[in-house]
Amino acid sequence: MPLSEFALIYRYFSSLGHGESVDLSVGDDCAILRLQPAERLATSVDTLVAGVHFAADDFPEDIGFRCVSVAASDLAAMGARPVGMTVALTLPEAQEFWLHSFSEGLAAAVGEYGLPLVGGDTTRGPLSISVQVLGALPQDQALLRGGARPGDAVYVSGTLGDAAAALAFLQGEWQPQPQQGEYLLGRLHRPRARLALGRDLLGSASAAIDVSDGLLADAGHIAAASGVCIEIDAQSLPLSSALAAFPDRERALAWAATGGDDYELCYCLPPGEDARGGTRIGQVRPGEGVTCALALDGAPGYDHFGAGDAAS
Amino acid sequence: MPLSEFALIYRYFSSLGHGESVDLSVGDDCAILRLQPAERLATSVDTLVAGVHFAADDFPEDIGFRCVSVAASDLAAMGARPVGMTVALTLPEAQEFWLHSFSEGLAAAVGEYGLPLVGGDTTRGPLSISVQVLGALPQDQALLRGGARPGDAVYVSGTLGDAAAALAFLQGEWQPQPQQGEYLLGRLHRPRARLALGRDLLGSASAAIDVSDGLLADAGHIAAASGVCIEIDAQSLPLSSALAAFPDRERALAWAATGGDDYELCYCLPPGEDARGGTRIGQVRPGEGVTCALALDGAPGYDHFGAGDAAS
Repeated sequence: MPLSEFALIYRYFSSLGHGESVDLSVGDDCAILRLQPAERLATSVDTLVAGVHFAADDFPEDIGFRCVSVAASDLAAMGARPVGMTVALTLPEAQEFWLHSFSEGLAAAVGEYGLPLVGGDTTRGPLSISVQVLGALPQDQALLRGGARPGDAVYVSGTLGDAAAALAFLQGEWQPQPQQGEYLLGRLHRPRARLALGRDLLGSASAAIDVSDGLLADAGHIAAASGVCIEIDAQSLPLSSALAAFPDRERALAWAATGGDDYELCYCLPPGEDARGGTRIGQVRPGEGVTCALALDGAPGYDHFGAGDAAS
Repeated sequence: MPLSEFALIYRYFSSLGHGESVDLSVGDDCAILRLQPAERLATSVDTLVAGVHFAADDFPEDIGFRCVSVAASDLAAMGARPVGMTVALTLPEAQEFWLHSFSEGLAAAVGEYGLPLVGGDTTRGPLSISVQVLGALPQDQALLRGGARPGDAVYVSGTLGDAAAALAFLQGEWQPQPQQGEYLLGRLHRPRARLALGRDLLGSASAAIDVSDGLLADAGHIAAASGVCIEIDAQSLPLSSALAAFPDRERALAWAATGGDDYELCYCLPPGEDARGGTRIGQVRPGEGVTCALALDGAPGYDHFGAGDAAS
């Protein structure tokens, strides 16, 4: 990549690297970060590929914001305090408009999440973005997938199915009212990582995960890791008013149950714990897998979703 | 990606995630790592793209080893103790042979560097690999680019130009003897990160960088960050016996001066410091940029290489 492009990217990246935990940011072989005494490091990486996770002609500011949210959502799901991130950006050519807009999205996420951009790599190739997030956890606490126990109640933050409904709208499968469509597209393109909720759940929730693959799939990961059955009450799934306006309620509930990309937190609480503003959507039983009484066309087998994947 | 592929990758990845600093490895939303008291975190990310940084039909075991070396080399250049890494793998389709061989290369690097694979992401798309390395540094020490002072001597570990010569061989530009060719290809495909040397230099070297873009370019980063001029004596550049056998010595020296991908360390030592087995190749003067008396066809301007890039 020509030096002028490096200089451009360096200018954008280096202005986003400051934070209380950052000793050294972009510009040397490594960034250097400090944790507080008795803290541990939480880390996760997520890659978004053009044509797979977003459209190459999506608004670059949205791409920048979203790639951080997707990665930061894993910190939320662990209850970690955000410390910093690195961004590995592969792009076909560095148009100044694209880079400027993309960096505006990064900057918005850096500000909203308090997650400074401390390092990066820029390479020439098909457009994709890998974001690695770094967070801090107390020595003896973390929100894991494996702690759910029979008798716990299952909750989810916010509303589900909005991103899936927006995708269906983009694909011409339905036509919402303009205001509803705008809301749903915002949920798809600008998801919010639930970092504050995650930290608030630390020490209270028995298990948690972020809803990235779809509620039933992600609840399946909790069920598998905890060795329990998670029983979801489909009728209780929280829908946004935009999605609730959709005339086919069963389809709306199917989006909520199986659609991905909402980045809400699904968490389990022992009896007596405060719901933290979430909606109760089910309970933990002895057994395995996920049950959900809902007619899902062509998607039986959702109770087998507990199989492990490589994402950390 | 079908679940069976996830399961395959998960199997390969999860066996490489154990280490003394690892509390929780692949399988939850984040990995959890521990630093020692009063240590800081060093982190860097590097992306290798098929068709840019390696050939798509390179031996997958080499690709796996090399992508870790490239990233770990940044830890070496900071003097950091390896703690863990994550790998974001984007690939068009998961052939079992390819994944198996690739993971063998990862495993070899994990073993050689003591750098457990604690997390990852696998996505469908054009083949590329982002490796994020995590290391530990003492509270008050790091090898930075900005500490070189006039009067320091400049050293490089190992030999330079081997990877560039191997690339020229692959492109049919010359024909080494079989044994020499094999040696040079090994240097290109299986570079070694100089982690032990980096840690040994901590507290002694005034500046260091790894030679990834080419010696003159990388020395230029030290010169720019330190506000000094680095004077390289081209005739002193260390050549392997395989490269020294090349009949055109000026061209061999040009490979050594400007070829990238050797992943040796270039470091500056104040007078009186032990060379740590490196070759003295120049000195630090007041001024700016890099000087090197060598006829480089079509590559004047190498003394302007100090401009910042986005890599950390």
